[in-house]
Amino acid sequence: MALIVQKFGGTSVGSVERIRNVARRVAKWRAAGHEIVVVPSAMAGETNRLIALAKEIQAHPDPRELDVVAATGEQVTIGLLAMALLELGVKARSYSGWQVRIVTDSAHNKARITSIDEAKAGNITTLGRGGSDTSAVALAAALKADECHIFTDVDGVYTTDPRIVPEARRLRTITFEEMLEMAGAGSKVLQIRSVEFAGKYRVPTRVLSSLTDPAIAVVEEAQAGTLITFEDDPHMAMEKAVISGVAFNRDEAKITVHDVPDRPGIAYAILGPIADAHIDVDVIVQNVGHDGMTDMTFTVHRNDYAKAVKILKTQVQPHIKCREISGDERIAKVSIVGMGMRSHAGIAAQMFRTLSEEGINIQMISTSEIKITVVIEEKYTELAVRVLHKAFELDQA
Amino acid sequence: MALIVQKFGGTSVGSVERIRNVARRVAKWRAAGHEIVVVPSAMAGETNRLIALAKEIQAHPDPRELDVVAATGEQVTIGLLAMALLELGVKARSYSGWQVRIVTDSAHNKARITSIDEAKAGNITTLGRGGSDTSAVALAAALKADECHIFTDVDGVYTTDPRIVPEARRLRTITFEEMLEMAGAGSKVLQIRSVEFAGKYRVPTRVLSSLTDPAIAVVEEAQAGTLITFEDDPHMAMEKAVISGVAFNRDEAKITVHDVPDRPGIAYAILGPIADAHIDVDVIVQNVGHDGMTDMTFTVHRNDYAKAVKILKTQVQPHIKCREISGDERIAKVSIVGMGMRSHAGIAAQMFRTLSEEGINIQMISTSEIKITVVIEEKYTELAVRVLHKAFELDQA
Repeated sequence: MALIVQKFGGTSVGSVERIRNVARRVAKWRAAGHEIVVVPSAMAGETNRLIALAKEIQAHPDPRELDVVAATGEQVTIGLLAMALLELGVKARSYSGWQVRIVTDSAHNKARITSIDEAKAGNITTLGRGGSDTSAVALAAALKADECHIFTDVDGVYTTDPRIVPEARRLRTITFEEMLEMAGAGSKVLQIRSVEFAGKYRVPTRVLSSLTDPAIAVVEEAQAGTLITFEDDPHMAMEKAVISGVAFNRDEAKITVHDVPDRPGIAYAILGPIADAHIDVDVIVQNVGHDGMTDMTFTVHRNDYAKAVKILKTQVQPHIKCREISGDERIAKVSIVGMGMRSHAGIAAQMFRTLSEEGINIQMISTSEIKITVVIEEKYTELAVRVLHKAFELDQA
Repeated sequence: MALIVQKFGGTSVGSVERIRNVARRVAKWRAAGHEIVVVPSAMAGETNRLIALAKEIQAHPDPRELDVVAATGEQVTIGLLAMALLELGVKARSYSGWQVRIVTDSAHNKARITSIDEAKAGNITTLGRGGSDTSAVALAAALKADECHIFTDVDGVYTTDPRIVPEARRLRTITFEEMLEMAGAGSKVLQIRSVEFAGKYRVPTRVLSSLTDPAIAVVEEAQAGTLITFEDDPHMAMEKAVISGVAFNRDEAKITVHDVPDRPGIAYAILGPIADAHIDVDVIVQNVGHDGMTDMTFTVHRNDYAKAVKILKTQVQPHIKCREISGDERIAKVSIVGMGMRSHAGIAAQMFRTLSEEGINIQMISTSEIKITVVIEEKYTELAVRVLHKAFELDQA
């Protein structure tokens, strides 16, 4: 008998019939002798409806009050799901965050969990989109659960997006480190903060589909989906692929500051005002200088592109004497991720050669111990993902 | 400067535009220097939508979980109203019951407030339909507010329903005792429990319309509507009418148990099983017996009529040897209410004569110190209300 936290996304609880299916699935696990804690999202579309209502009142809704309104979406689902379980004869009670005392900081709409056991009646906060992934993992950590199940509308983590590469394979396991790099590189299966939390508290987390037959045998479902493991986990020995997956992201834009003086402090002079404006910077590349000058290139989210360029032209350019500021919104970031590349030389070379054979120019490169990311022209995204998936034999079981 | 609790009903907050109007009204009172606590209902229709959703899951929803779901209706309104006030530049924060620690018992859907200051994180309950009237009065009592304003879709308490008697007059004041009798006799202006609460804690409560121009001057609005006063209140001297109003109710049915033995314990033998089935009994009449036998007649809500008759036939008749059980669903209850009748003889006689002159037969009579109620054939309801309103000169200012 195990204690398991199961999280169901908005699509999984998007209608009365789907809520009944979730209840059947939970009841089945309960009948198999396990203790189950369920964390459902709001019904699909409900959070958008509530936010739209708030925006009719205030174009920029007060963050505290927006959370008061938006949190009702999940409150409705927990009540309905408890009823559906009771209807099946399963003892169930719903609890709001304040009742089980999940304490967050007061950064409304993107609150961070500070503790789960402290007794304090505070404000209502929401953890932001995808927050229920994080709630589920946090609960699993607090309860020392044996496993956390994240039920979603895909049946696991794939070597890449199957819509682009039909040969993409579901991974039976992936390490936290790889999952973190995949999420950071654009994979949308799990919210990145939930993966960080799972890693920090070592919560064994399994990604599963809620759209399968709810009556599937527990013994089968317990092995389905993708299990996120630790590097030192015995599960790791089962799969030894050098590369686990290819991730990509088309949400970013590239900005280059040309011919800036190659001196200490120049990176801060450029990126400080960007950070002050709460704009996140992702890939940063600064080449070796020539004649005392260098170029600095970095990527930001496309939504922040215009704002970032404006800051550079008004607040940075007057002070640092750069020659030009240019940018490009039509780029893509493509990454290969894998624990195995640490002990295999030549992975980067193989990646660059593969892209070059297709005539794809690499604009920027950034590497971590288990990830290599390249920035390329956006129109080559699918081609790059397909050839890399094939080159690293990710279609082979 | 006063501390005032203002309650707004579901129609008053039924749309974004109406919520804005409520905010304008509250802002105006705030600008006049008062401290304001606002208690809004759920947006009109929202509670029904949530209950329907629950009933799709469970035909008879679990009471605890139904409250979890239904309470979100008001949570949305408090957030939206706080935003609307902030948008007008008025400092405002919303609080749920658990945040201000209104503690209730755990009778879900019809919870009673047990205290308002005790620190305890318990379950979510709702006080039932019209519960926000009671929340508002309870808050006003706890905060020792100077006045409680109940904003609704009528502009005060009338001598009777203006849809039946166009000459019906708005009362400038009414005593708690009269208001309680009016509510008990079918007047739907205020929920009866909120009136009980107001009386118990001596909360000066004013019934006002939210559908007037929100910009109406505070000095004028402070005198508008109907103020519920105490008998020993100086306001009382202003109006000296013997009768304050005529109330009526067509929600009840009459049941008679014929020829039962006229002996001690017979009332309990008949009404005990009815009470055990949680059926409320209203008017009860037992005539003087003859030949050791008597008839007992009482009224119940029409929704409970069939159930009550069945209980009598299966659980009571076999034990008490009554001749017959008969009933009538087509009855109405008509009451006259007024503090003044205590010191004026002949009020009952005048009521009975007025009805008799119109050929209206009186089936049952029940009296309290400040109310006389008759049960008549339903088809005479409007006629009875009109002639009584005129006979007691309620149309005269």
